[in-house]
Amino acid sequence: MQSRYQIVIDVFGNDNGPDVAIKGANLILSNFPHVNVILIGDQDVISNKMKELGADENRYTIIDTKEEITNLDNIVEAFYKKENASILLGLKELKENENTIGMLTAGNSGALVMGSIKYLRTDDLKRPCVAAILPTEDGKFVCLVDVGATIDCSSHQLHDFALLGSDFMRHLFQIDSPRIGLLSNGSEETKGNKLTKETYPLLKEDERLNFVGNIEGNKALSGCCDVLVADGFSANQVLKVTEGTAKRIITDIVKYIKMNKREDMMPLVGHLMKTYDISSLGGGIVLGAKKISIKCRGSCNEEAFLNTGRMLINIAENRAMYDK
Amino acid sequence: MQSRYQIVIDVFGNDNGPDVAIKGANLILSNFPHVNVILIGDQDVISNKMKELGADENRYTIIDTKEEITNLDNIVEAFYKKENASILLGLKELKENENTIGMLTAGNSGALVMGSIKYLRTDDLKRPCVAAILPTEDGKFVCLVDVGATIDCSSHQLHDFALLGSDFMRHLFQIDSPRIGLLSNGSEETKGNKLTKETYPLLKEDERLNFVGNIEGNKALSGCCDVLVADGFSANQVLKVTEGTAKRIITDIVKYIKMNKREDMMPLVGHLMKTYDISSLGGGIVLGAKKISIKCRGSCNEEAFLNTGRMLINIAENRAMYDK
Repeated sequence: MQSRYQIVIDVFGNDNGPDVAIKGANLILSNFPHVNVILIGDQDVISNKMKELGADENRYTIIDTKEEITNLDNIVEAFYKKENASILLGLKELKENENTIGMLTAGNSGALVMGSIKYLRTDDLKRPCVAAILPTEDGKFVCLVDVGATIDCSSHQLHDFALLGSDFMRHLFQIDSPRIGLLSNGSEETKGNKLTKETYPLLKEDERLNFVGNIEGNKALSGCCDVLVADGFSANQVLKVTEGTAKRIITDIVKYIKMNKREDMMPLVGHLMKTYDISSLGGGIVLGAKKISIKCRGSCNEEAFLNTGRMLINIAENRAMYDK
Repeated sequence: MQSRYQIVIDVFGNDNGPDVAIKGANLILSNFPHVNVILIGDQDVISNKMKELGADENRYTIIDTKEEITNLDNIVEAFYKKENASILLGLKELKENENTIGMLTAGNSGALVMGSIKYLRTDDLKRPCVAAILPTEDGKFVCLVDVGATIDCSSHQLHDFALLGSDFMRHLFQIDSPRIGLLSNGSEETKGNKLTKETYPLLKEDERLNFVGNIEGNKALSGCCDVLVADGFSANQVLKVTEGTAKRIITDIVKYIKMNKREDMMPLVGHLMKTYDISSLGGGIVLGAKKISIKCRGSCNEEAFLNTGRMLINIAENRAMYDK
């Protein structure tokens, strides 16, 4: 796929306003000369900012809307009342235009998944989920599903998510038989809550899956599995507790450096901040839809749009999702 | 309470065998001259080890049993079939002997809670829970309930746990009106899974509680609440993901030091290992029972028995639980 194609960027949903996504779009244009962008949001705001940034007018178009589904909306209600919400217009564009390969959005993940079901559902009718691709201790990656779209899951949904994650890791990372783990409160088969105990046999008995059993939270990002399956609530804990702990330890090190007058150790802080900076990490990838959408965090910066844009282009060019 | 009294030490349940608890008991005897211990387990093993350690024979007694409830047991079944399991004999001793103030055990937490209901239930009939007292970013402590005994909770149980945690922090830490947080996947009232959405109004409307709302995982140990309420499954994620992340970052720092030949930075590693060493941290305290039991981790070392012993003695002497 070397011909010119485009990606959609939803400018709403960022905690720090639309400028973050617009600057991110401009970074993508600078870094990927063969990619154009479609920005969705308030036409005037986008147009002024893109001019200010000196973006090439031939490489972007704008879909004008002022409607947005926020985190305070009741999603089911908003889904029908806000038909012109940026996130839904973006998914519609993906459905209708073959050359539009995917979308980046910091908007509402529930709306993103519901919209993907409406506009981009695959033939096997699996429920889409959102995957986070996280760096593991051994220098590889683990695919954590579901990261926030489906908070209360059924065991059959978790089973679907395991299959979607397995497919994704096989295609994108060329892993023959991705190892599937189930997040639990103990490694033994007898451990777990009602949901994981129901899910365990479904994963174990499915011959398409290389199930390696229950994984405890301290091993979540160790590299002992390629796909880690959890409901949206628990996966959110894994992400946020990791982030909070990293931030706390880094703060602790800075205090230690000041107290001991060891400013020569500051490069270590830089190294750790780069390694554990969640705000510039890739976002959540919607699996189980005909095209790729990536959910950036509400608090993300413009670098995150560049990084997730790179990820999106990488996935599309690897045809990870197109081969099916 | 300055007169001589005793605490029970269950020698079973440790991943590294009974020696860990026996050595821990001996450390307690050395550090607390006004406390005696009752060891429960295999008489010969305990007796030989205590002699080898040179413990004063007048300061310990042994309750002989070879029965143990393990993590592989079905708890309900084991509870009736293994009446002489060390953990149950310990709770029985607490019930029958006024001078026995509490128990330390690395055994099965489910059995500990069920046994506490049978032998040490309080008059208000709340379900006991297990609390972890964890150091927060601001140098204070947060009481996390429930840490593992009740994996699938009802909203009414979480409400009870909030009340138990609030009482505990008021008595032990002399906090007038402990701030109660509910672990969730977002700070807004609309966020949460089915369980936390049902629990939210119960906590909000109870005038005995100073409810401060939903708390996200990255703020779990920030110090923004004094009691953090979660089901056993989610609380387990908070504990273990914190542990895993800390271990990973420390390993990362050691690698960085080696690669950059900066061995002069090793004291920082020592500092962090001391701050984030979960294996010597205090264990889980059973709240909502007439006497104190503390659950040590299966992988804990003898220092952990000393630390939890100190905590137990501290609680008893503060009469935190006796005032009720």
